[in-house]
Amino acid sequence: MLILVGSGLRESQLTREAEEAIKGADIVIVETYTMPSSKWLPTAVRKLNSNVREASRSELEELSSNIVELAFKLKVVLVVPGDPLIATTHSSLVVEGLKRGVEVKVVSGISGPCSVESLLGLHFYKFGRTVTVPGPWRGVGAEEAALGLLGNLCHDLHTLLLLDVSPEGLSLSPSRAVKELKESLRRLIGTKLDELMNMMVLLVSVGENTIVKHFTLGNADSIPDVDVGSLVVPSRLHVSEREFLRYAYSVPEDIMMSHNKLLQGFDACSAYSEALRVMYSSSA
Amino acid sequence: MLILVGSGLRESQLTREAEEAIKGADIVIVETYTMPSSKWLPTAVRKLNSNVREASRSELEELSSNIVELAFKLKVVLVVPGDPLIATTHSSLVVEGLKRGVEVKVVSGISGPCSVESLLGLHFYKFGRTVTVPGPWRGVGAEEAALGLLGNLCHDLHTLLLLDVSPEGLSLSPSRAVKELKESLRRLIGTKLDELMNMMVLLVSVGENTIVKHFTLGNADSIPDVDVGSLVVPSRLHVSEREFLRYAYSVPEDIMMSHNKLLQGFDACSAYSEALRVMYSSSA
Repeated sequence: MLILVGSGLRESQLTREAEEAIKGADIVIVETYTMPSSKWLPTAVRKLNSNVREASRSELEELSSNIVELAFKLKVVLVVPGDPLIATTHSSLVVEGLKRGVEVKVVSGISGPCSVESLLGLHFYKFGRTVTVPGPWRGVGAEEAALGLLGNLCHDLHTLLLLDVSPEGLSLSPSRAVKELKESLRRLIGTKLDELMNMMVLLVSVGENTIVKHFTLGNADSIPDVDVGSLVVPSRLHVSEREFLRYAYSVPEDIMMSHNKLLQGFDACSAYSEALRVMYSSSA
Repeated sequence: MLILVGSGLRESQLTREAEEAIKGADIVIVETYTMPSSKWLPTAVRKLNSNVREASRSELEELSSNIVELAFKLKVVLVVPGDPLIATTHSSLVVEGLKRGVEVKVVSGISGPCSVESLLGLHFYKFGRTVTVPGPWRGVGAEEAALGLLGNLCHDLHTLLLLDVSPEGLSLSPSRAVKELKESLRRLIGTKLDELMNMMVLLVSVGENTIVKHFTLGNADSIPDVDVGSLVVPSRLHVSEREFLRYAYSVPEDIMMSHNKLLQGFDACSAYSEALRVMYSSSA
């Protein structure tokens, strides 16, 4: 039997289900590479089971058929930070197991991306597509992320930007992510980007303590390099969203009002279609 | 102190954090109206604390200033199914508390909408905006949901459709939801709707056992009325998504291939702009 267990974002977020699964396992494999802030995880798991092995990305990918093989005879538990199927690649392991006739179970955990969307107090139904800002190790620009952002803004939707994680388990820094994003936006919408320079960006870290910092796109040099984070570019903020950000995270009202005013005046849909045109013509 | 605690979707999804908060409370208020499948919650909470009170939607809304008042002197815990801030209205209670100087904490829980997106094995970054199909008690059609769906399809994004909950705590049935959706689509895109009749819809329930059923838009009469659920209309399915649905939930490959073929041939963007035109001209 193979059980994929999500651990949540800190030891105290382990569910009863997760604890039981870990305790009852013959072998526990822990991966922490999908979330660099999950260094606490192996220690927490060892408190529940002594037969623990840590696996890196390459090991886990190479081991995947071994894991499935093992799961024919033993209760194998793979512990993953966050939720095992949200924004990770572990669904392939589920499929591989099921294909070969192994019993597979998924134990959900509190997910990083969902926590970001939740803890900011923004309306869940106002989030558009989630994008990932790729790290320099991918060898591609952030054009896809920039397009996603413009498309969401055109539809008045918030954007969650995940920061890419390197094969060595390092997270793209938020300042580098914004730099990449700005360069891509510049290539796609040229001088229209200048209009967006005062747009508010929220930096969110949801590990042991929730950290929310605000800055503008133009002011990206002052971004603190918090260990792990996501960025959120909100669309026009509803009064209840502004109140939440103001009272929970001290985001100044005047900054949110300028953000709203800027987006009110910015023709995001025409910027989006211009960006699409540039993407298509350059790839043609 | 006021602590909002998310309980997850079943007793075994309680986190250590949630259990500690409930145990340490002077008074625990439990609400179950945001999720009709959470009837298990009050009993589970009473095992951890004897001073428990259940509150209905109207009570909680009327009580909100009392709760804040109480939280000046006592440790008040509000337990909520799922996550306390995703697709609920509890963020207003956080704001009210903070405004009046009460210490407020949020304890995240495993959220229903996030579990649906996770357990289906669909790519998280391919979900577009989430929409709610309103119940007949709202006195409005499902045009907003229909527009959201068409907009997402135009961008090749999956759509999560939440089923509305009545003031009495009843969930809109999936068959009624699809009926409302079809009527609204008919008003917005007329005969173009016929092209969509073979589009696959997934019915998802993520309570004690995960249930996933598949049917087509045209075949809505055969929808089983599972107690609580969400609907998901996937955009074109990636091969890894098809494999997951096939091996984990026995969705037949030929149905998924027809779905993909249908969406490949359907001009969702022109349907979307036609729908927008109809909405605007009828409201003008």
